[in-house]
This record gives sequence, C-alpha cells and structure tokens, in this order.
Amino acid sequence: MSKGLLIIISGPSGAGKGTVCKELMSMQLPDLEVSVSATTRKPRTGEVEGISYFFKNKEEFIEMINHNEFIEYAQVYDNFYGTPRSYVQNKLDNGKDVILEIDIQGAMQVKKNNPEGVFVFIMPPSFEELKHRIISRGTETQQDILKRLHEAYKEVCSSRNYDYIVINDDVHTAAEKVRSIITAEKCKLKRCKIDYDSYKEE
Amino acid sequence: MSKGLLIIISGPSGAGKGTVCKELMSMQLPDLEVSVSATTRKPRTGEVEGISYFFKNKEEFIEMINHNEFIEYAQVYDNFYGTPRSYVQNKLDNGKDVILEIDIQGAMQVKKNNPEGVFVFIMPPSFEELKHRIISRGTETQQDILKRLHEAYKEVCSSRNYDYIVINDDVHTAAEKVRSIITAEKCKLKRCKIDYDSYKEE
Repeated sequence: MSKGLLIIISGPSGAGKGTVCKELMSMQLPDLEVSVSATTRKPRTGEVEGISYFFKNKEEFIEMINHNEFIEYAQVYDNFYGTPRSYVQNKLDNGKDVILEIDIQGAMQVKKNNPEGVFVFIMPPSFEELKHRIISRGTETQQDILKRLHEAYKEVCSSRNYDYIVINDDVHTAAEKVRSIITAEKCKLKRCKIDYDSYKEE
Repeated sequence: MSKGLLIIISGPSGAGKGTVCKELMSMQLPDLEVSVSATTRKPRTGEVEGISYFFKNKEEFIEMINHNEFIEYAQVYDNFYGTPRSYVQNKLDNGKDVILEIDIQGAMQVKKNNPEGVFVFIMPPSFEELKHRIISRGTETQQDILKRLHEAYKEVCSSRNYDYIVINDDVHTAAEKVRSIITAEKCKLKRCKIDYDSYKEE
C-alpha cells in the first residue's frame, strides 16, 4: 500500500480555512480524513473523545510535549492544543490522506520535520473582505481589530513558505481547488510507484 | 494578465493520450486549447488549414527549422511534423493554457527549452492492456508487434523524466486527473501573483 498524503491547510484567521475544510470533507473523497487534535481544554456539550478532540489534562499534555509526541502544538491562553504524531503517522501508514487544519505557527512547526507534506495556504480574497469578516464577528474593539488586521497582513506574507495558494473567494471553488491539489499530488512522479519491469515482454 | 500554462501530454503509442486529450477538451475548461501542428503531409478530406494543421511544403518547413521556429519537430517517413514556436508563445502570452499532445521524443525536445512546462505522462494501465491495444489494431506482423512492444517498454521507462504520471485505466478518470493537475499547477506558489501590500492597513 502506498503511504497517504499529509496535507496542511492553513491561513490567517478570517481566510475561512475551517469552512473550506468542511466543504472538502463533504465531498467524501475516499481515504481523506481530518486529523483530531489533543487539547487540555474541557469538553463542551456534545464533544466526543477521539472525534472532536483527544482530551488530556495538563500533566499528560506536558509529558507528551517532553516525549516529542506532537507534530506541532501551541498554548492559547490557558489551554494547550496539539497534533499527536503517532495518530497521524498511523493514518498515513495505512494509506489515509490526513488533513491538518492549523494556524500559521503550527504549519511552520510541521514543515520543519515533515517537508514531504503538502502545504496549502488559504488566502482571503482581498483585504476588504478580510476586514469585513473580522469586523462582522462584532465582538472586538477598534484596537483589537487593528491588531488583528496587522497580524493578518503578516500572516498573508508568510504564504511565501507554502507550496500552493488557494484564494477563497468562493468556498466551493476553493474546496474544489484543494481537491485538485490532492489528486495532482498523487500523480506526481515521486509518489508513483511504477513497476517498470512489468511492461517488459518476456 | 498572467501567462498561460504549457502542458505537455505524452506517452507511448497505445497509452491512449489522444483519447485522454479529446475527453479533456470535451470538458470545455476556460482558456484551454490544443496546439495546432505544422506538417508537410497533404491535407485529407475535411482537414482545415489552421485548425487541423498548418500545411506547409517541404521548403517552407525546412526554412522554419533553420530559423529555429519549432518548439519540437520530427520526420515521420516522408513527412515532417512540428509545433510552431510563435503560435504557442502567442497563446501563452494571451493567458491561454496550451496542450501539446506529442510523442516522447518531441516531449524531450520541448523540455530542453521549456523546463517551466508541465510534463504529463499517460501510462497504459498494464503491459497486458498495452499489448492488447497494439495487437487489436490488427494491421501488423508478429515481428512488428514485438518491435512496438519493446519500443513501448523503453518509452514507459522514460516516464521518469516527467512531472506527473497519469495511469489511463479509464479515459474519463484519466482526463479528470489531467484537469486536476492543471488546476493545481495554477495554485502553485510560483505561479500566483499576490499583491501582498494590498493586504496592508493604511
């Protein structure tokens, strides 16, 4: 069996990477799965262990960090989030394609140790649209918004470190593009195991 | 306007590259065109200058060779066939994606001077199927068939020089894969012209 693809879908907040991933998963491609993260935050109603997250307490999480058991992890306020290495590796070894939907910092951690991954940057269609999306969440002060816009600009610039850029002006078109990227990557010479001798007349 | 893609579709005879190209063109992708070759062979009934071929006499063709006006050309028995450079370049400059459906020798000529092209190898699904396709043409002696099979084996091995390998076990699936390759190539970082500064808050 050939190994699955590791696909990293990332981008600034407000680019819509979550919606693009959901749309992609609704296409039900064979062998495509979204990775499940580990977290120290408490389960919310309806969340299921091993499906929504792997729920860990802080001690367990820190031990996993110390044993290098994460492909990437981050602390967000009081909670830790991370992608368990063995979980992803198992899937890949079993021929599953695994999507990591993560932020830019996480993606850059993954790239360091998994350069064979396929790095896709979801780009907001324009600054105006990004601004609109950030503002329309409606929960932030003017200063917070400015800070987030500046952050987003820096993140947009980091797209230079990715393999592909998908502009998210329409979520279905963007998901179709990611689907095409996965199909094309599987056709790449380096990923095709051709048994040349089987084409030889005895 | 961004430049179009040069897509080279090649493979051994019997791999079905012609049928895959026809199927791809029937999908009517915007801005995708098949290149028109020049030839010294006489027009057949129904063939139209500039659509089927650019018909040239031998002197004209040889003058074009001497002026380096072909991306690739070949002599097949008494006739010459070639891809006119200016015709293709004009299309690309006008943002059209251009498909060259050519044999392995032609593809390798193209690669020398157009490494930015996207090189797709159409692979017969198996030796048995290739044999079946070559034999079922029914026009050749046992010796001719053996010679063609050996030729095909050598050509299969040359797929190592391509960017992508598309196995043609089903013509629609194969054409869909080529379509995905075109879509994915357009999302590649190096082909995306992002105006980073437009994402900067004034």
